[in-house]
Amino acid sequence: MPENILEEFEPIFYPRSIAVIGVSGKGGMANKFFNSLLDGGFKGKVYGVNSRGGELRGMPLYTNLNAIPEPVDYVISSAPKQAVSQIIDDCGTKGVKVVHLFAAGFSEAGEEGLREEDELAAKAKQLNVRVIGPNCIGISCPEHGTSLEPTPLPDSRLMIGDVGSVAFISQSGGNGVTFIEAGLTRGIGMSKVISFGNGCDLKASDFMEYLAVDPKTEVIAGYLEGARDARRLFEVLTQVCRKKPVVIWKGGTTESGAKMTSSHTGSLAGSDVAWEVAFRQAGVVRADGLDEMADAVLAFQSFGRLDGNRVFGITGLPGGGGGFGVALADACMSQGLSLPAPSEETKARLKPILPPAGCILRNPVDMSAVAYTPENASKAIEVIFNEPGIDAILLHLPVSMLIGIWERDGFNAMVDKFIDLRRSYNKPLVICSPPCMYDVERVAMEKKLAQARIPCYPTLHRAAGAIQHVARYSDFRREVELL
Amino acid sequence: MPENILEEFEPIFYPRSIAVIGVSGKGGMANKFFNSLLDGGFKGKVYGVNSRGGELRGMPLYTNLNAIPEPVDYVISSAPKQAVSQIIDDCGTKGVKVVHLFAAGFSEAGEEGLREEDELAAKAKQLNVRVIGPNCIGISCPEHGTSLEPTPLPDSRLMIGDVGSVAFISQSGGNGVTFIEAGLTRGIGMSKVISFGNGCDLKASDFMEYLAVDPKTEVIAGYLEGARDARRLFEVLTQVCRKKPVVIWKGGTTESGAKMTSSHTGSLAGSDVAWEVAFRQAGVVRADGLDEMADAVLAFQSFGRLDGNRVFGITGLPGGGGGFGVALADACMSQGLSLPAPSEETKARLKPILPPAGCILRNPVDMSAVAYTPENASKAIEVIFNEPGIDAILLHLPVSMLIGIWERDGFNAMVDKFIDLRRSYNKPLVICSPPCMYDVERVAMEKKLAQARIPCYPTLHRAAGAIQHVARYSDFRREVELL
Repeated sequence: MPENILEEFEPIFYPRSIAVIGVSGKGGMANKFFNSLLDGGFKGKVYGVNSRGGELRGMPLYTNLNAIPEPVDYVISSAPKQAVSQIIDDCGTKGVKVVHLFAAGFSEAGEEGLREEDELAAKAKQLNVRVIGPNCIGISCPEHGTSLEPTPLPDSRLMIGDVGSVAFISQSGGNGVTFIEAGLTRGIGMSKVISFGNGCDLKASDFMEYLAVDPKTEVIAGYLEGARDARRLFEVLTQVCRKKPVVIWKGGTTESGAKMTSSHTGSLAGSDVAWEVAFRQAGVVRADGLDEMADAVLAFQSFGRLDGNRVFGITGLPGGGGGFGVALADACMSQGLSLPAPSEETKARLKPILPPAGCILRNPVDMSAVAYTPENASKAIEVIFNEPGIDAILLHLPVSMLIGIWERDGFNAMVDKFIDLRRSYNKPLVICSPPCMYDVERVAMEKKLAQARIPCYPTLHRAAGAIQHVARYSDFRREVELL
Repeated sequence: MPENILEEFEPIFYPRSIAVIGVSGKGGMANKFFNSLLDGGFKGKVYGVNSRGGELRGMPLYTNLNAIPEPVDYVISSAPKQAVSQIIDDCGTKGVKVVHLFAAGFSEAGEEGLREEDELAAKAKQLNVRVIGPNCIGISCPEHGTSLEPTPLPDSRLMIGDVGSVAFISQSGGNGVTFIEAGLTRGIGMSKVISFGNGCDLKASDFMEYLAVDPKTEVIAGYLEGARDARRLFEVLTQVCRKKPVVIWKGGTTESGAKMTSSHTGSLAGSDVAWEVAFRQAGVVRADGLDEMADAVLAFQSFGRLDGNRVFGITGLPGGGGGFGVALADACMSQGLSLPAPSEETKARLKPILPPAGCILRNPVDMSAVAYTPENASKAIEVIFNEPGIDAILLHLPVSMLIGIWERDGFNAMVDKFIDLRRSYNKPLVICSPPCMYDVERVAMEKKLAQARIPCYPTLHRAAGAIQHVARYSDFRREVELL
């Protein structure tokens, strides 16, 4: 890893000043960027540039980058393709460190566009200006108040996200926004979200190198469509995966998908078998789609490592848990997790609490006949937290039934009890809470639990899959640490 | 199929009168059943039975079934195991047609319980009383106002469901309730929902025979843990699948899952390979879990059959659709669907609408650069509806971005346009609308679209999977119809 990468990337993620090109009295994309920096809590100076001058929101608009009297670290350009070459020149003269190019029509449009893209990359390199893009919506660093392409939502949360420890590197801007939104609803906090599009200069390998040493990032996620520097990318990934978990969703794994990556970001999707082998060798956690990627990231954010893959399942809150128990067992086993039988001690402690008719004293345990009250359920659940030789607890929680039967007070008390148990025993707890008629309450609960390091999943399969991703990565880390 | 099965099952699904045993001044499960019949719109007479007599809600409680002066079709018993034998006797004397037994502790509890269960089944048969259960929560026929085990929710919708054309046969009560809830939130209407538990008398094969000819049922779903009459079940399924689609989720496919089915409903889960082969031969649509089952059912409810598996994908509403296009293509192809290239005519019609920079004129089509307004998006979408040689259209719809960029009026107009197009062209339209920050609006939209026969799915994989289930079943029907 380059020694000085933190310093080198400082202006990319923590610029002291940003100039937005093309701001005008008429609105448009540049104004949206300009406004989002002013309104979204950006912790640096903002300048507007318009060739005709003028002013906006009481601030002067400069006719040219070089007319700005102070230094500019970062430039945002939503100007069309034809204007880009001149903008790079101006950035060079001004001493700008990095420029974000929104414009499309480059390598994704064909050979002519690829040639133009190569030319602008060469020029920027010569002038010592780093490039994000083209054909992308830029960088969000919530801690510093920068955002992806802003939309006219009631607030800019959708483009910024909550502050947290997860970084996401995406070749697709749409997937970047969707991941931020998944984070906002599910409780995944972001350190950095990067949309780098065609990646003519800065690309996945560069950002990976930075994030590996970024003290604010603990988990790295990625959406890739291809890599022009595949060899280097895998050398970097091999290093990074030994430090932090890297979860990657690779797009373009099928024939039709690969055609789309070429038209989208000018990427050659490549042989999926080759990617699979390289990911495995590097220690990458591979996800098939945005949801599986978010699922894994949420688990890593919540407990980082697991000692093994032994799960204890709990169903039957607030009753009727037999079928869910079958489903939980099938989901865990089909994901390769193990469900060891309860120890004799645990059985002895559960027997007085769980009546034989209507409960099932196995792993998973079905608490149906006792869990009609939260008090009894809490008692039985605490016994499971004391079970030795278990790496994680997976609990099925149908929110509408709980609110219906226990009422809101009982339900809220149970949620607080989960948080208490998670803290006191420091044992990973994972919850499956399917979409239901009380979805507003469910989403609020999931966010609260995520903050207490209890991840929630909509299906048992997805919960089991996320646990397995952490268990496998933990195995990988133990192996490489032994070498 | 038995000739007179509709008549024979009439008292099971459309009883003229129901007696609830064990109703008392003290509350309890029997009272919940009693109240839910009185308050939930049951279209027959309700009687309460309590050995000490008395009255409740202004109605007399009868000391015994035989003290009821009028005929009783259906009895609900939540009495414990020990009382069941006497209740069967009383049902016989009274001429009751069917009894629902809530009590647990029978075959699922071990050999002793299995013996008792066999005895009660034999006695009921001798007395000409049909049995639902034991160890189950009964039957919901929303059209007739009967419900599964009622919970103290603000209303009883969770246990009844919307009236519709989907029937669900479930060995698990919890899964029955969860499926009803999935239906309420996603727009799946129910003709009948059946929880039959241990199935000592009436079981999946019996209900399948009835539903095959039930005029109110068009799609049949099932959750099975095992079958004591496997040979007969598959003979019946072979007949039923030639009439109506049957979607089955089989629980207990893994070692741990199979142990749970035995403890849950006393079912031997059996060899999964044997089930798989038998399902295929019969023409069953097999689903792995409740969500996949609901996904398939929703597609069958919406368009029943498909002419083939050729899909046209649309992304980029309201922008940023490139990455979603890659994901849509990968999801469709990995599910075995095909994405034929757009015809020359369609290309010629789309070219003037879609600018080359920022749009991708392929299948899937990415409308990003044009779809910033709903008017342009509508025009381009209508061109796709005119594309020949396409069996279904799959459209990616990020609701929060649409509401954010188009505002509510534009968003609502687009939803109405989808409904118009679906009706005018009679072409299957499927929507993928992931969970988002505007989930209240999303859920309302999904229900509205489902009623217009446009099913919605939370992920592209699940949408593609549901389309493929209908395409494969349609192939199966064409094959058997040629024989």
